[in-house]
Amino acid sequence: MAKQILVVHGPNLNLLGTREPEIYGRLTLSALNDRLVDLATESGCTLNAFQSNHEGAIVDCIQGARLDGTNFIVINAGAYTHTSVAIRDALAGVAIPFVEVHLSNVYKREAFRHHSYLSELAIGVVAGLGADGYEAAVKVAIRH
Amino acid sequence: MAKQILVVHGPNLNLLGTREPEIYGRLTLSALNDRLVDLATESGCTLNAFQSNHEGAIVDCIQGARLDGTNFIVINAGAYTHTSVAIRDALAGVAIPFVEVHLSNVYKREAFRHHSYLSELAIGVVAGLGADGYEAAVKVAIRH
Amino acid sequence: MAKQILVVHGPNLNLLGTREPEIYGRLTLSALNDRLVDLATESGCTLNAFQSNHEGAIVDCIQGARLDGTNFIVINAGAYTHTSVAIRDALAGVAIPFVEVHLSNVYKREAFRHHSYLSELAIGVVAGLGADGYEAAVKVAIRH
Amino acid sequence: MAKQILVVHGPNLNLLGTREPEIYGRLTLSALNDRLVDLATESGCTLNAFQSNHEGAIVDCIQGARLDGTNFIVINAGAYTHTSVAIRDALAGVAIPFVEVHLSNVYKREAFRHHSYLSELAIGVVAGLGADGYEAAVKVAIRH
Amino acid sequence: MAKQILVVHGPNLNLLGTREPEIYGRLTLSALNDRLVDLATESGCTLNAFQSNHEGAIVDCIQGARLDGTNFIVINAGAYTHTSVAIRDALAGVAIPFVEVHLSNVYKREAFRHHSYLSELAIGVVAGLGADGYEAAVKVAIRH
Amino acid sequence: MAKQILVVHGPNLNLLGTREPEIYGRLTLSALNDRLVDLATESGCTLNAFQSNHEGAIVDCIQGARLDGTNFIVINAGAYTHTSVAIRDALAGVAIPFVEVHLSNVYKREAFRHHSYLSELAIGVVAGLGADGYEAAVKVAIRH
Amino acid sequence: MAKQILVVHGPNLNLLGTREPEIYGRLTLSALNDRLVDLATESGCTLNAFQSNHEGAIVDCIQGARLDGTNFIVINAGAYTHTSVAIRDALAGVAIPFVEVHLSNVYKREAFRHHSYLSELAIGVVAGLGADGYEAAVKVAIRH
Amino acid sequence: MAKQILVVHGPNLNLLGTREPEIYGRLTLSALNDRLVDLATESGCTLNAFQSNHEGAIVDCIQGARLDGTNFIVINAGAYTHTSVAIRDALAGVAIPFVEVHLSNVYKREAFRHHSYLSELAIGVVAGLGADGYEAAVKVAIRH
Amino acid sequence: MAKQILVVHGPNLNLLGTREPEIYGRLTLSALNDRLVDLATESGCTLNAFQSNHEGAIVDCIQGARLDGTNFIVINAGAYTHTSVAIRDALAGVAIPFVEVHLSNVYKREAFRHHSYLSELAIGVVAGLGADGYEAAVKVAIRH
Amino acid sequence: MAKQILVVHGPNLNLLGTREPEIYGRLTLSALNDRLVDLATESGCTLNAFQSNHEGAIVDCIQGARLDGTNFIVINAGAYTHTSVAIRDALAGVAIPFVEVHLSNVYKREAFRHHSYLSELAIGVVAGLGADGYEAAVKVAIRH
Amino acid sequence: MAKQILVVHGPNLNLLGTREPEIYGRLTLSALNDRLVDLATESGCTLNAFQSNHEGAIVDCIQGARLDGTNFIVINAGAYTHTSVAIRDALAGVAIPFVEVHLSNVYKREAFRHHSYLSELAIGVVAGLGADGYEAAVKVAIRH
Amino acid sequence: MAKQILVVHGPNLNLLGTREPEIYGRLTLSALNDRLVDLATESGCTLNAFQSNHEGAIVDCIQGARLDGTNFIVINAGAYTHTSVAIRDALAGVAIPFVEVHLSNVYKREAFRHHSYLSELAIGVVAGLGADGYEAAVKVAIRH
Repeated sequence: MAKQILVVHGPNLNLLGTREPEIYGRLTLSALNDRLVDLATESGCTLNAFQSNHEGAIVDCIQGARLDGTNFIVINAGAYTHTSVAIRDALAGVAIPFVEVHLSNVYKREAFRHHSYLSELAIGVVAGLGADGYEAAVKVAIRH
Repeated sequence: MAKQILVVHGPNLNLLGTREPEIYGRLTLSALNDRLVDLATESGCTLNAFQSNHEGAIVDCIQGARLDGTNFIVINAGAYTHTSVAIRDALAGVAIPFVEVHLSNVYKREAFRHHSYLSELAIGVVAGLGADGYEAAVKVAIRH
Repeated sequence: MAKQILVVHGPNLNLLGTREPEIYGRLTLSALNDRLVDLATESGCTLNAFQSNHEGAIVDCIQGARLDGTNFIVINAGAYTHTSVAIRDALAGVAIPFVEVHLSNVYKREAFRHHSYLSELAIGVVAGLGADGYEAAVKVAIRH
Repeated sequence: MAKQILVVHGPNLNLLGTREPEIYGRLTLSALNDRLVDLATESGCTLNAFQSNHEGAIVDCIQGARLDGTNFIVINAGAYTHTSVAIRDALAGVAIPFVEVHLSNVYKREAFRHHSYLSELAIGVVAGLGADGYEAAVKVAIRH
Repeated sequence: MAKQILVVHGPNLNLLGTREPEIYGRLTLSALNDRLVDLATESGCTLNAFQSNHEGAIVDCIQGARLDGTNFIVINAGAYTHTSVAIRDALAGVAIPFVEVHLSNVYKREAFRHHSYLSELAIGVVAGLGADGYEAAVKVAIRH
Repeated sequence: MAKQILVVHGPNLNLLGTREPEIYGRLTLSALNDRLVDLATESGCTLNAFQSNHEGAIVDCIQGARLDGTNFIVINAGAYTHTSVAIRDALAGVAIPFVEVHLSNVYKREAFRHHSYLSELAIGVVAGLGADGYEAAVKVAIRH
Repeated sequence: MAKQILVVHGPNLNLLGTREPEIYGRLTLSALNDRLVDLATESGCTLNAFQSNHEGAIVDCIQGARLDGTNFIVINAGAYTHTSVAIRDALAGVAIPFVEVHLSNVYKREAFRHHSYLSELAIGVVAGLGADGYEAAVKVAIRH
Repeated sequence: MAKQILVVHGPNLNLLGTREPEIYGRLTLSALNDRLVDLATESGCTLNAFQSNHEGAIVDCIQGARLDGTNFIVINAGAYTHTSVAIRDALAGVAIPFVEVHLSNVYKREAFRHHSYLSELAIGVVAGLGADGYEAAVKVAIRH
Repeated sequence: MAKQILVVHGPNLNLLGTREPEIYGRLTLSALNDRLVDLATESGCTLNAFQSNHEGAIVDCIQGARLDGTNFIVINAGAYTHTSVAIRDALAGVAIPFVEVHLSNVYKREAFRHHSYLSELAIGVVAGLGADGYEAAVKVAIRH
Repeated sequence: MAKQILVVHGPNLNLLGTREPEIYGRLTLSALNDRLVDLATESGCTLNAFQSNHEGAIVDCIQGARLDGTNFIVINAGAYTHTSVAIRDALAGVAIPFVEVHLSNVYKREAFRHHSYLSELAIGVVAGLGADGYEAAVKVAIRH
Repeated sequence: MAKQILVVHGPNLNLLGTREPEIYGRLTLSALNDRLVDLATESGCTLNAFQSNHEGAIVDCIQGARLDGTNFIVINAGAYTHTSVAIRDALAGVAIPFVEVHLSNVYKREAFRHHSYLSELAIGVVAGLGADGYEAAVKVAIRH
Repeated sequence: MAKQILVVHGPNLNLLGTREPEIYGRLTLSALNDRLVDLATESGCTLNAFQSNHEGAIVDCIQGARLDGTNFIVINAGAYTHTSVAIRDALAGVAIPFVEVHLSNVYKREAFRHHSYLSELAIGVVAGLGADGYEAAVKVAIRH
């Protein structure tokens, strides 16, 4: 079945490719999104990407996915991973299966990045594999 | 004296009646608001309801209450109950008495829902009584 | 259906209206009980109230409710809220639905009053609304 | 030597066989006591059983054992296991050897049931073996 | 002014002089009470002593002191020192000044004896001085 | 039905009867095993005993029990009780009911011996009853 | 060199001079900003001030500073100081040196205000000096 | 360049496909290994798989990888993930890049499975994606 | 036997009677010392008092007591009570029995004042009884 | 009014300008003091500086300030910031307003430097601004 | 008397001189053993060295020492220092005096290396002195 | 090269050989110093020893070492090991390599002796080897 996939990028991911490249690499967000769209399209799926620095806007976006036919969410909630119960509740509320992705290996970084409000509800978690991590998550979405 | 009451609903409460009905029940937010408006009107009070998924918008709304004559706030800050110092500070800043409401019994749920940044400043807290909890809070507002 | 409601008051609540009125108000326990009996009677229900300073006596009382047809319990276990696993076990043992009430807002007080052994098993919790909180709980009992 | 054994049952154990049978089984307290009396009698020992929901009454009972010739105590303090320093002190005060018994496997239940004020002073602890656990403890008493 | 002093002894203190003399000494409770009555009488005060193994009975006794003219309480709540919020609330409720006494040096013993629910409300605390500690407390009562 | 019982002894239990007899008693491991075999045989059951100092060998042994018809496991995992998630996972993986035994009363010893990775999955736990504890566990196995 | 300085004010600071003057003083935000602009202008620097109650808007603003030539940031993130990893990440992402300011002495207030997500990345922290603290920070910016 | 990849499976993974299929799925370990060998061969790489229930054997195996030309390790250390500093030290000692894999989403399970001794040293972590997670890790190995 | 008693006063006690009289009262240190000398002299004992703001000087003083015939120490180590292992070690080193005194009820004050490095080694502790507490301690010294 | 200001430097600050210049900068203590004296003199104030490695000497110095007319204290207690209750008590005892200064940003350093015994009593805290931080504090002193 | 000394090296110490030389130095394990044998021989003692990556093998080896006349053990349990209760129990079981050695200063490294299950039973601990630390321990063994 | 070595002894070490010989042995401090001087002299080095009960004096002494040509410090800071950030800062400030020594095995004693403020900066730590520990440290100094 052709899936409709939503990729959600959290705060500061719009800086991708420019800020702290030693942590996050040099790929820009639009280039990353293009790769993911291609990957989905090859399998006959559609993929939309969304980025916001606003917690509330991410909650709105996830709520919207319940109405527009989205089958699967890939989410890198960035900093909100560690602080947002609201995004967790939105994901639980829409009950769409999702995979949590982090570009960097959060377990190598500050202790407050070791806890995620989302992981307990996710199908799985991928961290530290850069853009490959997003691709792996999209493949799970396609096959789910 | 005729009170002006503000009811603030936090993130994901717009999904009320549709998401996770085993936790939150089947009443929609607009139906709930209608019941509360009726209850206030019967006592000669006015009641306005506000919902947002945005922490900042809730802060703005609470700040606005200082200027528009609001006498009492009933707030279910949802997920922000557990993470928002900004909403706490807004409530302290406007110094309007308020009651904290939760639809579900938060003490039965995940540990991170057992702490509220608001309770310490509230007149009281009602949890787990569903729409009845809001009604009890509005009655306190009317009599306050 | 006409409900049979039991209201349980824990230790020191017999001092109500006399001790620390700035925390607990000036209503006496018997006046409070009268209001609750009236409220129940209006709805065709019966309501019995019990107070004891003895943890074991409260356990005995709750066990007795299983045999005498009680349908609902409203309990303000006072200080035993925070220390009594035995009362928790009695409530679980009789499996009668109950609401937990506190006259004062326990979340504004000492840290040891923020944890309740009962909340996890209760339908809901009301704190800080004074006698109104008992009334709200009795209404839940009537409608349950 | 013919032993005199005291079996102490704590709060809510009088409900045995009726409350929460999926946790505690269907044997009643009097049937359990009968089995233990038989077991002791077979070995030429005497065995008395006591149950109370009152912490103070259990303390009184243990203190009494110092005077009436009791050689060994088997105690299931129920909920007081986790909250009563007074029962611990009574057991230390009379200096009668004892075994601590729990019908259910307390380590499978809530975290607050994982700690016992008595274990540190007991000869041993048996949990989760139902009535067999009491029997094992009485056998230890007989052979002690 | 002639004071009326109440001395409250908690659980297991009736065993005084017999249980664990290496910790608690060889003086019996009645001998101790006699010394304290003599001390009070010499100063023209009256002194009544009360002992119980029951938390609720101690709460009842403290509540009674509000009505019978007691001016000062000396309390060794024994094990309940560390577990009873109800006794704390009773002392707060009657608002009679009190000194907390322990026969043994509780700070040399198990960690759970290092915390007292009473100390925060007491005028002062005396521990480890045996019967001398009670005498010091009674002297404070006389002079208060 | 004739049960096939496996008794697993963890590290250092081969020293039984020789090391630290004040803690572990003077019975040797082979004498203990003989008693348990006799007990099982009397009831028409078979019982095999295994000891190893190697965590991996204990995991192998438990996995083997799934294939050889073992109906029940009695396990004293010794030091691995407190450190081995692998043995826990092996017991969960083979899904054979088991009782956890400790010769000494682990709750009287160092704090790190108060936690067991196995108890949460066990039918029950026996500690501090020496060889009697094993016998009680084998009886549970026979009757299970 | 003429610096371009950005001053960021977090949630509820728009209430400055009106809310809780015993904590925050009577200076309004616009008056404070005027003082800071004057101070910067005297040294030939430019200074822009920004206030928002929205975490995401503050992240947007900080990201914008990377593009508009800002050399230094003075930030009082208010309540978001204690809860926002997103603002921390934005500051790390743009890599503009900054000083953290608090009007009140946060170390005198609730424990949750003692931790800042920003301090670890800041050049320095000033708390409790009121408007003087902002001035000290701007002087650091001018001289940096 | 043609990579030589080592896949290490920890304790109880030999039960794959048979134990707890609701957690771990129905794929057997040898079928999984075959898929991974195929994936590597397609890219001109070699891949060897190793499984052991013995912590020491896994340490030996990792040390061996330093000598046999292994370029990359994919490791699912199973239960040893949470308890083995020795495996961590072996991975640090051989200094071969590695990805950590878990079949199940460990963040949904017991708290002791939320910490890994390996993550801090890994390139990345994949959890909850089943066999897909191993494939993603092998692809990272191929491209590394 | 005529005792030689040393009274040690720690840091800031030289301010007695002048600083924070609402906490520490209005008696000066020299007046307090005079009362204690009189009390000792009445019983045929000698008493020397020492005060210092220097931790090392207090250690020196306690070490000196081993050589000059001191039989008993009464010590109010003030702030060093909570931070000085060195004074604890000195008291242990000289092995002279001592009572710990505090003028104020330290258990009513900041949490860091609830722990004492000395209590575990003391005969007893007196807190909150003002100068009476010192007198009680000196009486213990005389009778010891 | 012409203020008399005392600047207190704690342990190891005499090494300023020589030890660890990457943390503390290259300004010597006497040069720093000269700058502060100049700053005070310009405003018609007097300023005395004191440095000691001895906790007791710092306590003595602060006590002396009560008698010599000091109006304000600026204190960098260095390492004693984190360990000295005695200095805290001295500051509370003399009741002279003070600002706490740290040359380095202590929140970037070891966790034990994140807590200060002084901050709770200070008017404000300045950290990480080097000599500028002292100047800001002295300005506060002048204007106070 | 001529001592028989056993030196036990734990996991990954076979890599000595090759892995992470910046932490562990360049001496190989066999060269280190040779130095220790020479040192023992000079004093007329014998010394055997053992290394294993297997926790169980180290337990076996320590148990063997009880039978072969070993008088003293020098042990660097490597990673098992921090995780093995079994090795601790083996050392307690054989009751042979031992010194614990670490090549690196474990207190400079990750927090989980700061705790040792062995230290509490050891005569002493040497860390961070490289091969000198082993020599010091062997000298203690010779003189013991 | 001929080294100049400083040996620093902290509080209460002047009592060596007299206080608590079961913990610290019977060697006096001067005898110990003589042995260390001899050991240094044999290798053509000089060694000075210093003891003080005053934290500040130890800081002064360490600071002095920077100026007098000291190449290496051996320090047993006694009780200050566990409480003094000032001594830590002095050692960091002078940047002279040092070894930390304890006569007794501090890991066998009270929990508060398990943490040292110095170890993280030391080359190594020796505990529990008595005077041999000092000798080992001096040998490291000679060879450094």
